[in-house]
Amino acid sequence: MATLGAPTKKHKVTVVGSGNWGSTIAKIVAENTKAYPEIFEEDVQMWVYEEEVTLPKDSKNFDASANGPQKLTTVINKYHENVKYLPNIALPKNIIANPSVIDAVKDSTILVFNLPHQFIGRISKQLEGHILPFARGISCIKGVNVTSSEISLFSEWIGEGLGIYCGALSGANIANEIALEKWSETTIAYDPPAIDSRAPTPSSSQINLTITPADGEHKDVRGRISKTKLKALPADYPPLDHALFKTLFHRPYFHVRMVDDVAGVSLGGALKNIVALAAGFVDGRGWGDNAKAAIMRVGLLEMVKFGKEFFGHSVHAGTFTEESCGVADLITSCSGGRNFKCAKLAIERGVSVDEVEKTELNGQKLQGTSTAKEVNSFLETRGAVDEYPLFKAVIDILEGRNTVDDIPDLVARADA
Amino acid sequence: MATLGAPTKKHKVTVVGSGNWGSTIAKIVAENTKAYPEIFEEDVQMWVYEEEVTLPKDSKNFDASANGPQKLTTVINKYHENVKYLPNIALPKNIIANPSVIDAVKDSTILVFNLPHQFIGRISKQLEGHILPFARGISCIKGVNVTSSEISLFSEWIGEGLGIYCGALSGANIANEIALEKWSETTIAYDPPAIDSRAPTPSSSQINLTITPADGEHKDVRGRISKTKLKALPADYPPLDHALFKTLFHRPYFHVRMVDDVAGVSLGGALKNIVALAAGFVDGRGWGDNAKAAIMRVGLLEMVKFGKEFFGHSVHAGTFTEESCGVADLITSCSGGRNFKCAKLAIERGVSVDEVEKTELNGQKLQGTSTAKEVNSFLETRGAVDEYPLFKAVIDILEGRNTVDDIPDLVARADA
Repeated sequence: MATLGAPTKKHKVTVVGSGNWGSTIAKIVAENTKAYPEIFEEDVQMWVYEEEVTLPKDSKNFDASANGPQKLTTVINKYHENVKYLPNIALPKNIIANPSVIDAVKDSTILVFNLPHQFIGRISKQLEGHILPFARGISCIKGVNVTSSEISLFSEWIGEGLGIYCGALSGANIANEIALEKWSETTIAYDPPAIDSRAPTPSSSQINLTITPADGEHKDVRGRISKTKLKALPADYPPLDHALFKTLFHRPYFHVRMVDDVAGVSLGGALKNIVALAAGFVDGRGWGDNAKAAIMRVGLLEMVKFGKEFFGHSVHAGTFTEESCGVADLITSCSGGRNFKCAKLAIERGVSVDEVEKTELNGQKLQGTSTAKEVNSFLETRGAVDEYPLFKAVIDILEGRNTVDDIPDLVARADA
Repeated sequence: MATLGAPTKKHKVTVVGSGNWGSTIAKIVAENTKAYPEIFEEDVQMWVYEEEVTLPKDSKNFDASANGPQKLTTVINKYHENVKYLPNIALPKNIIANPSVIDAVKDSTILVFNLPHQFIGRISKQLEGHILPFARGISCIKGVNVTSSEISLFSEWIGEGLGIYCGALSGANIANEIALEKWSETTIAYDPPAIDSRAPTPSSSQINLTITPADGEHKDVRGRISKTKLKALPADYPPLDHALFKTLFHRPYFHVRMVDDVAGVSLGGALKNIVALAAGFVDGRGWGDNAKAAIMRVGLLEMVKFGKEFFGHSVHAGTFTEESCGVADLITSCSGGRNFKCAKLAIERGVSVDEVEKTELNGQKLQGTSTAKEVNSFLETRGAVDEYPLFKAVIDILEGRNTVDDIPDLVARADA
């Protein structure tokens, strides 16, 4: 086959979001765009939801004359620190904070989504028509969207909304630890349709003129034909494959493993929160390490079963049992995560988790409690609640129909 | 096929060993022999290494007139408490403490081995010729026997020594928690050659007269022909299958899952200690929960790889990633186990683990340090050290050739 020419263009990267985790991911990505100038444009755009911040007065890092509130984007671009969401961490100078999401994504081939899931819909709408049609996304947003009738992945939602393919990143990733460059691992799932590797692909100068034969229908993770007709990446860019995404995200302190299983990676980050509640329950009950480990084991298997049952052959058990996004993230969440801690507190105090959410979280809901509720109503619609005894035990304890003491008997039925 | 008659005999159970874990297992087993009188003889013999104990003076549980040292077996049989190794736990009255191991195993069809592994050789020798030739064993002894040239399972060692088939029990099982009837899970591996299910089998009255055609050569877990010629269980006993062992060991607070993979179950309980050292190292270094979870994930995969490489097709990845003897036991060991704690302490204090063993354990060696050394020399003999970067990192840190800071880089090579 004739070579259509070596890549002459570089990938431009935008991080959409700039919270605690968004800023941390931007730091990682910007370190790598600088380290690999032959593949990436050095500057990384980071979309910042603009707000006003006041600089800490007594820090020698900041201009003493700075008085009164300033724009967060101005502060980040001047001091290279996200003083509000990732304080005391030096950001690379090639992160460019941008208050306009439309301007931030301009000409970017790689869009990294890392914002609260509540914003996905609005941002996708804003971006319509403003991104490169052949861009690719990676969603770092944990969780899935469950209704009683359907489960959708945030990566799917983003991909559908923008008409692009979007993968997912998830792992045992407490942002503050990674920002301090303490070692951790992550999992990135990326499995676009074959279109990206087909030859010949059009060069970018052709792309706007044609619906090329290389553009293809996009089957989603459940094998359904998506509405999205994917545009092929022009051949003058380095191919967007596993090796490239590993280059973009892997750091000496942040180890990346690439997989194909987008659904498994996304589900792990959502379902683990239900298991973490159960782990908190038995720990709060004083049952010790054996029981906590048993909960995690049973929970892990229900996660695998759920993935295989509702996302079919695209889901691999190994994504849950062998990758950072599965077993490792579960372990972290059952050690010091919010869901675990609040569930434990509820049992120790003899109050409901609802009550703990009120007193400890100002009424904010835990991810685990809403996921437990959503997953339960999804399973009810399908008559499958009893096949997931641990998930069922959690919602039944949350809603007062069972107590922690019932857990061993309830989960034993699955093995009977 | 003609039925040779329903079972008319009951299984008699002996627990060989009476330490902390041995007494706990005896409690479980005795509760079940009492609960299922149609299958088991109620009394459970427990071999006790005889020693003299002095009863606590101020307890109302004991005879006030008891003065001076008494025999441990006498105390257990009178007060139904192992005051030395499992104090304050009421043992079932149908546990019969017996100082003679030969007398304890007489006529028993099920032998549960639960004693320090240093005693296996001596006890097997003592028992030679004194057990029922068609008895079956379950080893609750954690660990494997590694030399630079070979790995053998304790269950194999016992089986070979006694000429019987021996399975294995292992799990996230901190004995004291189970003795208090806090919920936990365990895994029992039992996969004897087909002989036990063959028909016709001789009745027990025939068994001593014939080497029946139903007796067979026994292939060990690596497919080698064992020296042991197994004797078939007489048909007048209930069959010794997965269901029967589950009935014998499963309690409302002690959940049993049965598997076939004896090697996987045994290896899990040994190799986890190497991983627990590594988890202690990174935790002691202050790297937090991400790093600890990463170590456990990497370690789990090396455990799977090791099992598959040296025990072939009989080992299933799922034994490590899905069962209590694998992932759950690893989690427990990396939470509060001795190997984890001492490794953590060593890094925090900036001293060697060797030093911590001296100051904290009176010079007693941790299981993890000796297993790490043995496994390393075994892998060296096979030129396979570099394929297990985490196991290698642990021995290299123990012996001063690497530091904790090298771990991320060392394990990354496996993914490169």
